[in-house]
Amino acid sequence: MIFEGSEKKAEIIIDKEKLNLLELDNSLWAKLVAKANATILSHIENEYIKAFLLSESSLFVYQDRILIITCGQTTLIDAINFFINELGKLNIKQLIFQRKNEYFSYLQPTTFFDDIKILEENFEGQAFRMGNMDDHHNFVYHLRNAYCPDADDRTFELLLYEISPKARDILMKEDVTKEEIRNFLRLEEILPDFQIDDFVFKPYGYSLNAIRGQEYFTIHITPQEESSYVSFETDINLKDHINKIIEAFEPGAYDFIEFRPESDGCGKTTPGLYELKTQAQSHLSCGYTMYFSHFYKKREGLLAPFSIL
Amino acid sequence: MIFEGSEKKAEIIIDKEKLNLLELDNSLWAKLVAKANATILSHIENEYIKAFLLSESSLFVYQDRILIITCGQTTLIDAINFFINELGKLNIKQLIFQRKNEYFSYLQPTTFFDDIKILEENFEGQAFRMGNMDDHHNFVYHLRNAYCPDADDRTFELLLYEISPKARDILMKEDVTKEEIRNFLRLEEILPDFQIDDFVFKPYGYSLNAIRGQEYFTIHITPQEESSYVSFETDINLKDHINKIIEAFEPGAYDFIEFRPESDGCGKTTPGLYELKTQAQSHLSCGYTMYFSHFYKKREGLLAPFSIL
Repeated sequence: MIFEGSEKKAEIIIDKEKLNLLELDNSLWAKLVAKANATILSHIENEYIKAFLLSESSLFVYQDRILIITCGQTTLIDAINFFINELGKLNIKQLIFQRKNEYFSYLQPTTFFDDIKILEENFEGQAFRMGNMDDHHNFVYHLRNAYCPDADDRTFELLLYEISPKARDILMKEDVTKEEIRNFLRLEEILPDFQIDDFVFKPYGYSLNAIRGQEYFTIHITPQEESSYVSFETDINLKDHINKIIEAFEPGAYDFIEFRPESDGCGKTTPGLYELKTQAQSHLSCGYTMYFSHFYKKREGLLAPFSIL
Repeated sequence: MIFEGSEKKAEIIIDKEKLNLLELDNSLWAKLVAKANATILSHIENEYIKAFLLSESSLFVYQDRILIITCGQTTLIDAINFFINELGKLNIKQLIFQRKNEYFSYLQPTTFFDDIKILEENFEGQAFRMGNMDDHHNFVYHLRNAYCPDADDRTFELLLYEISPKARDILMKEDVTKEEIRNFLRLEEILPDFQIDDFVFKPYGYSLNAIRGQEYFTIHITPQEESSYVSFETDINLKDHINKIIEAFEPGAYDFIEFRPESDGCGKTTPGLYELKTQAQSHLSCGYTMYFSHFYKKREGLLAPFSIL
């Protein structure tokens, strides 16, 4: 059974003058997640954030926004519609919906094109693709309005493909423990003083949510060779840790995505072995600039055919 | 409406001591093609080959083999099954089935994995993927037997992606003629003395079959920006013409595939602007060596986002 690790993601921001999402009962979030065909495994929280670890990725709830990331064959669009219905369309200040390119799109109940048709029944938005169709890319939709993000509202996403056999061996070891995976990820260095909630899936896979004050960090690992994929998403500066992560996984290719409220240039983040293949940048009319970069590992010699039968 | 240009292909070789496929009535080929949900538009022939131009690509019939290439949402597997049923499983000496990676696989009635399950009901085969899952790749299936190809049995495939705006403008011009496309392709230089059968599709697209003695050449063009794709397949030495073709289309990326009866090393075919990203090679136990190379154009500066909404 092939598992599609590539995520769908929605960030929905509401008017905080009218409502505090942290005051809503957790049963609402269980219902929301169920709409996407996922379930809540566990949760942690602090004064600013409720972080739910899901059967397929993560949900973060803040006073004025939710951030939901789901993978596999989930129907995130149904969870988004549920949220809009519950909260009221007029209370939605911004909605950013993103789908990473999928390698098993025939297993998906809907496409990005289907999803945005549904969003357009309620909203007026813009949609585009970052990266070429025949290469790593991201689909993005956001409302066409005058939303103005806070100056420190940054998001970093790091997506790894074709992880090394060494990394696979560690992550797919029978009865691998949380501690072994945390050590492999060097989490003590990356996430000091973070409250951590993680889960090892059977037969394979690992998910982590971490929060510290207003900061969040989430990791999702699909280690199987036929569809290996690892994603990191956070609002802390991920560039400080990218070398450590690349060293651990030695991926054949990776993408780096950044959302920033202002366009002050996109820092290069290529460790020496990796070639920057594609770089794209878009000023979103909803107040963010989105940066997309696709890197791959320069290959020496021939790639071995991947046996199927 | 998105059109998937990427082809499925089957080459089926029969025992020529028992039967001459050229003696069979053309109505059989019309039925075969209908099984794949395609139709015959026209045909040309000579002493060695019948070449049918299809609504979705091409069928070539020889004394001892058929070569069928279909694109779009065709069900080539059903045509293969029809052929096996008509000719008899015991008369099949070799079957090579290939699927290029698709970018709209959710539009396909079946996957490669579905197709080979059906083939395995009749045969014992081997299957593998050339190229990484998250990059350009090819799926290949062939019978696990001691088939021995002729020494001159070579096949070349050249697949272009992200063709230049200049090439698109010519190919998508309203009422573009065959002659204009032939001139753009410099066919006089590539196909001297070939008998040509070509077709301009409405609103967009172009297909060509050409034969000369025992040689064949086929071209299929999907020019639309959202899914641009061009394929060349032939048994003449395509390396002699690759520079001309790349100059005309200036693609963002291309793949070069070669099947050879012997492994005498794979010539480099990179025009200067293009970087070789992936090279793979596999000795097929059915007597061929398959070479797969993926090249891309080194990009200067940022890639523009592709607008959807």
